[in-house]
Amino acid sequence: MQPQLVALDWGTSSLRAYLLGPEGHVLDQRSLDRGIMQLSTIPRTICGESTNDGFELTFDEACGDWLDAYPDAAVIACGMVGSAQGWQEVPYCPSPAQAADVAAGMARVRTLRGIHVHLVPGVLQRSALPNVMRGEETQIFGLLQSLPPAERDQTLLVGLPGSHSKWARVVEQRIEHFDTFMTGELFAAASAHTILGRTQKRSASFDSVAFERGVAVAMSPEGSIGVLSTMFSARSLGLTGQLASSEQADYLSGLMIGHELRALAEMLRQRSGLATLPAVVLIGNGALCQRYSQALALCGFSSVSQAEQATERGLWSLALAAGLVAQQLQEV
Amino acid sequence: MQPQLVALDWGTSSLRAYLLGPEGHVLDQRSLDRGIMQLSTIPRTICGESTNDGFELTFDEACGDWLDAYPDAAVIACGMVGSAQGWQEVPYCPSPAQAADVAAGMARVRTLRGIHVHLVPGVLQRSALPNVMRGEETQIFGLLQSLPPAERDQTLLVGLPGSHSKWARVVEQRIEHFDTFMTGELFAAASAHTILGRTQKRSASFDSVAFERGVAVAMSPEGSIGVLSTMFSARSLGLTGQLASSEQADYLSGLMIGHELRALAEMLRQRSGLATLPAVVLIGNGALCQRYSQALALCGFSSVSQAEQATERGLWSLALAAGLVAQQLQEV
Repeated sequence: MQPQLVALDWGTSSLRAYLLGPEGHVLDQRSLDRGIMQLSTIPRTICGESTNDGFELTFDEACGDWLDAYPDAAVIACGMVGSAQGWQEVPYCPSPAQAADVAAGMARVRTLRGIHVHLVPGVLQRSALPNVMRGEETQIFGLLQSLPPAERDQTLLVGLPGSHSKWARVVEQRIEHFDTFMTGELFAAASAHTILGRTQKRSASFDSVAFERGVAVAMSPEGSIGVLSTMFSARSLGLTGQLASSEQADYLSGLMIGHELRALAEMLRQRSGLATLPAVVLIGNGALCQRYSQALALCGFSSVSQAEQATERGLWSLALAAGLVAQQLQEV
Repeated sequence: MQPQLVALDWGTSSLRAYLLGPEGHVLDQRSLDRGIMQLSTIPRTICGESTNDGFELTFDEACGDWLDAYPDAAVIACGMVGSAQGWQEVPYCPSPAQAADVAAGMARVRTLRGIHVHLVPGVLQRSALPNVMRGEETQIFGLLQSLPPAERDQTLLVGLPGSHSKWARVVEQRIEHFDTFMTGELFAAASAHTILGRTQKRSASFDSVAFERGVAVAMSPEGSIGVLSTMFSARSLGLTGQLASSEQADYLSGLMIGHELRALAEMLRQRSGLATLPAVVLIGNGALCQRYSQALALCGFSSVSQAEQATERGLWSLALAAGLVAQQLQEV
C-alpha cells in the first residue's frame, strides 16, 4: 500500500509518529522521547542546510526517512506542537467544535525540506473558568471514527486520563463541553516534592487493594472534606501503622483519582437530574485507563469501555476533512 | 528577673528559642534556620566532649550561652524535635487532650551538658482518617492562657495556618477534634513543580485583588467541581488573557485557601445544623494569618481574631503543668 500521510502526535513529553496508508491503515509507527520540551539539540545539516532548530531536527529524526522514501505524503501534527511553546502557535478553535471546524482551523509550517506540516488547533471553551485542550480533540474525533456510523451521533462521555485528565461531552460528533483535572500532575508533584513522598516506597507492581482503598476514602463521608485534607491520611495512616510505605503511592493515586471521579459524578447527576451515570469511553495509556476503569466502577459508573488507536484515526480523519488525503475509491 | 525556663519551638524548618522569666515573661528570644532537617553539622567540642550530633550542636548554638549563664533553668521543647525524625521520639498523646495530659506525656533527653530537655508530645486523633499534630497543641494551650479565665472554657475554633494548616475544636480547654489541610505545601509544590509555575511571575507585594478572585472562584458554583479541576484555571485564564502572570500566584493561593475554607464551612454547618459559622481564632505567621483572615471573611466567617505569643505562652504553661517551673508567689 502506498503511504499517504505522515501523522504526528507531538506533545509536551513525547512524540509518536505514524505512517498511514489508504483508509488510514497503519503501515509503520514509532515513539520518541522528544516532546516539545525535550527537542533534539545537536546541529545537523538537513537538505543541504545546517540548522540548530530543535523542531526541524526532531521532525527529521522522527520521519525524515519516511519523507525521503515517500516525498508526496502529506504531513499532519496535533498536540502541544501547535501551542505558544510549539513550532508555531495555532489559535484555538472555539467549542462546540466538530472535526470540520478543527480541520478548517489548521495552520501550516514550511520545513527545510520544503514541505508543509499541517498543525491541528486545540479547542477552547469560553466558560466562566475557561478550558483548553490540544491533542485530545484529535483523539475524540478518532474515537468517533471507530464507532459504527449509527452510534456516532449519540451523546458520549469521553474520559482522557493523563497528566491533565479531560472529560468531554460529545453531542452529535461535536465536542460540546469539557473539564480538566490536574490529578496526574499533582499526584506526581505531591509524591516527589511534599512530605508524602518521604515515606512512599514505590513498588514495581500495582497495588490494587491500596488503590481501591484510596478510591473508597474519596467516596466516603470522610472524603467530603476534600482532597487537600484527605491527602494527609497517606501520612497519618502510615504514622499509625495502618498503611505500609509500599502501599502509600497507590493509595494516594486512588484517593486523588477518586476525588476527581466523585466530583465528576456529582456534576453529572446535578446536570442530568438523574441518579444513573452515563456510559464512559476512555482514551489513553493502557495502564492508566485500567486504573480509571477500576475507580469508575467503584464510583458507580457501570459501563466503561476503552477506545483503540484513537490518535492515528483522529489524525487521519482530520487530514481527510482538510482534503490532505482522499477517501479511497474502489480500485479499478 | 531571674530566667527560669529555656523554651524551644523546634520544627521541621526552623527553631525559635525563648528565655523566660517568672510568669513566663520573655527576657530574650532568637530565631534560627535550624529545623530538624537543617541541623548544624560541623563537629565541635561541647562541655569537653567532641561531637558531631546535629541535635547537640544545634541545641548548643541556640541556647548554650543562656545555659552557661543560668545553669539552673529548666528546658522544654515542642514540635518535630519529638518526632521519629527528631532528637528522640515522644509517643503522641491521644485526643481529646488538655494541657495536663500533654504535660504528663513529656519525655526527656539528656544532653552532653548533663541537663535534660523535656520534649512535648504531639496529639493523635484516632478517627477513621487519623490526624496528628506536633507543636500546634502547645500553641493552642498558649492561646488558652492568653484568654481571660472566664472565657477559657468556651468552645473555640482555632485555625493554625502553615504548610499543613490545622483546624481544631477546643472544648473546655481540651483539644477535642482537629483536621489537617495540606494547602500550603501543595501550593508550593504546584507553583514550583507543575505547569502552573511556568507562567507565574512572583511579585514582591501581595496582590489582594487576585487573591480574593481566587477565593471567590472556590466559593462559586464553578468551585463545586473541586480544587483538582479549578486549579487549571490559573493557566486557562492566563492563556485567554484574563489573568496576568504577576497575578497567578496570589490567585492560586486564594483559590486553594478558598477550597480549604469552603470545605471547613460546609463541615461546620453540617455538624452544627446551623447556618451561622463560629468565631475563629488564628495562630501563626502574620502575613499568612492576614491571608486567611481575608479569605475567612469572604467565606462567611464574621468573627476572626489572632492570638499573640501563643508558642511561648504554651511552652510556659506546659512547663508549669509538668512542675518544671513554679507559679510565682508574692515576693517577700
